[in-house]
Amino acid sequence: MKTSPLRGFTLFLTGLAGAGKTTIAQRVNELLLDEYWRTVTILDGEVVREMVSSGLTFSRADRELNIRRIGYVAGEITRHGGICIAAAIAPFRVARADVRARIGALGAYYEIHVATPLAECEKRDPKGLYRMARQGLVKNVPGVDAVYEEPEKPELRIDTSFLSVEEEARQVLQLPVRDGLL
Amino acid sequence: MKTSPLRGFTLFLTGLAGAGKTTIAQRVNELLLDEYWRTVTILDGEVVREMVSSGLTFSRADRELNIRRIGYVAGEITRHGGICIAAAIAPFRVARADVRARIGALGAYYEIHVATPLAECEKRDPKGLYRMARQGLVKNVPGVDAVYEEPEKPELRIDTSFLSVEEEARQVLQLPVRDGLL
Repeated sequence: MKTSPLRGFTLFLTGLAGAGKTTIAQRVNELLLDEYWRTVTILDGEVVREMVSSGLTFSRADRELNIRRIGYVAGEITRHGGICIAAAIAPFRVARADVRARIGALGAYYEIHVATPLAECEKRDPKGLYRMARQGLVKNVPGVDAVYEEPEKPELRIDTSFLSVEEEARQVLQLPVRDGLL
Repeated sequence: MKTSPLRGFTLFLTGLAGAGKTTIAQRVNELLLDEYWRTVTILDGEVVREMVSSGLTFSRADRELNIRRIGYVAGEITRHGGICIAAAIAPFRVARADVRARIGALGAYYEIHVATPLAECEKRDPKGLYRMARQGLVKNVPGVDAVYEEPEKPELRIDTSFLSVEEEARQVLQLPVRDGLL
């Protein structure tokens, strides 16, 4: 019996720019490595746009294509018993539902809505995105001049205005722990 | 210890259109499933162009980008202890060297040159590609009006003019078997 004894899973963090997705992803990654000796692939927006989505714009069609590619890569990792943490705004409900269906058929899937309010995201503005959007220098920013369709039934919802990164990461890890995957 | 006990690897089949890459990939996949109970991701040209490379052309730059994306996905699968079989023309030596370096750092990597002569590929012409190329209806076909840089030191070279698919697939499988990966 040489099949992997590990069941793969994907943690998909969705939320506005500046909500704290990447910060949580990185801490969860560290905990998985340090406490469970597990290898993780992080698919955050910038890695994905470099590795599989270079050339795509931020139009609705290209955002959907970007999420579809994330779903494909995360699915293949999950299929092989690996762990993937995806962190992307992923503003469209239908695109997220497609990702859930694909990955859920290959392993476990957890949607985490990083639900930090827009005002807080805009105050942080780590990349200056909101400032530029308010000045009209960039367009199609979800929450400003583009839609962000809130998840209706995420496996977990986190408002990073209130918790420490450590608490947030532990809450996320509880999902696969609860299901016996770690 | 929950780390996967499996060491991942990628079998990368390169060669002209019609050389027999996909046929070999499919038989190797069946053998891995039936005899070793292993899950495989096949990244052949059409899957890749649907899932991560839609919109790319067959220009030199886009072909390189396509191979780079295959290398990225295959690398992540390999990282998690999975098995990936990539089947792509991949005509450029430098792009293949980049893929080898990336994946080799994450697991085992085997380049298989499916070295069926052009005349034989053209006789088979399963997609009518060569016929269209000779009629000037398509351009940038490696071996016709675009370069195919032959691998200098592939782990295995197969000329499908002489062997059965079964023999070819067994030769490919010998590579990971020899290294104790199966």
